[in-house]
Amino acid sequence: MDMIETIRKRRSVREFSEKPPDERTIMKTLEAARWAPSGLNNQPWRFLVVRDTETKEGLAGFTKYSGIILGAPVSIIACLDHDSSYNRDKDVMAVGAAIQNILLCACSLGLGTCWLGEIINRKEEVARYLKLADSLEIMAVIAMGYPAGNIEDGQRKPLPELLLEQ
Amino acid sequence: MDMIETIRKRRSVREFSEKPPDERTIMKTLEAARWAPSGLNNQPWRFLVVRDTETKEGLAGFTKYSGIILGAPVSIIACLDHDSSYNRDKDVMAVGAAIQNILLCACSLGLGTCWLGEIINRKEEVARYLKLADSLEIMAVIAMGYPAGNIEDGQRKPLPELLLEQ
Repeated sequence: MDMIETIRKRRSVREFSEKPPDERTIMKTLEAARWAPSGLNNQPWRFLVVRDTETKEGLAGFTKYSGIILGAPVSIIACLDHDSSYNRDKDVMAVGAAIQNILLCACSLGLGTCWLGEIINRKEEVARYLKLADSLEIMAVIAMGYPAGNIEDGQRKPLPELLLEQ
Repeated sequence: MDMIETIRKRRSVREFSEKPPDERTIMKTLEAARWAPSGLNNQPWRFLVVRDTETKEGLAGFTKYSGIILGAPVSIIACLDHDSSYNRDKDVMAVGAAIQNILLCACSLGLGTCWLGEIINRKEEVARYLKLADSLEIMAVIAMGYPAGNIEDGQRKPLPELLLEQ
């Protein structure tokens, strides 16, 4: 799918069909994350793919958006690896760029995603629940699956509101 | 251009031809930034497009990568708007996602870009030089233009090194 069309078409998907994406398709989206840019090419992103119902139910307990996690066949936990980190702002932006690659790649493959941020309000508890290494900080959960139901139109500020003048 | 191919093909470009990208092409890349996702759809990104030689020379004085800024026809200053911000980590990731949209869109249009992060070590001085409003924090400078010279192959960790196990 065309780049600009995909960027414009990608929307948050909150309802998913029961059909799970196959392993190869999930790995394609993480392969896309892998090619994101990062400062000094430090690649500070790490990913945990969660598919089993028990773990999804556990995760769902940490967020008010539990329905999205329970309804999505896959949750990807995106982490910042402090052992690879050198500048927090740059590394957090790099994780954002890697997540955007996942969302765009998923969209181009016909998958829907929802970038869940609210759950990081309880990131330490979630990390303990998932038994993550101490060096890993959870930055987001990405719900993933084939879209079902209606997808709302996006709304954005007009471009002139984003442009600064000197 | 195909999404996955563009994600894989995008590289940092550090040498540019003198031909400037036209205004419409630059705006397409910022239009792509506009459609990035953000927490609560707060769209905390703002952009200053710098084309004039005097300002580029001024910018170049704040970074050891001055040659890239001086050689690129355009520099885009990407900022976080604190008046729109609600959670620093989520907002910094959103700016990262918006920057990635710029880089990918630029690549799909035949433009080269270089995401410059080192300059933010002096972001307060750069902001004063550019006379930015107090609410704006500089997160990155993106050098942009048509590529010249050789583009190096990218190197990334193998995917298994990025995947966590429970």
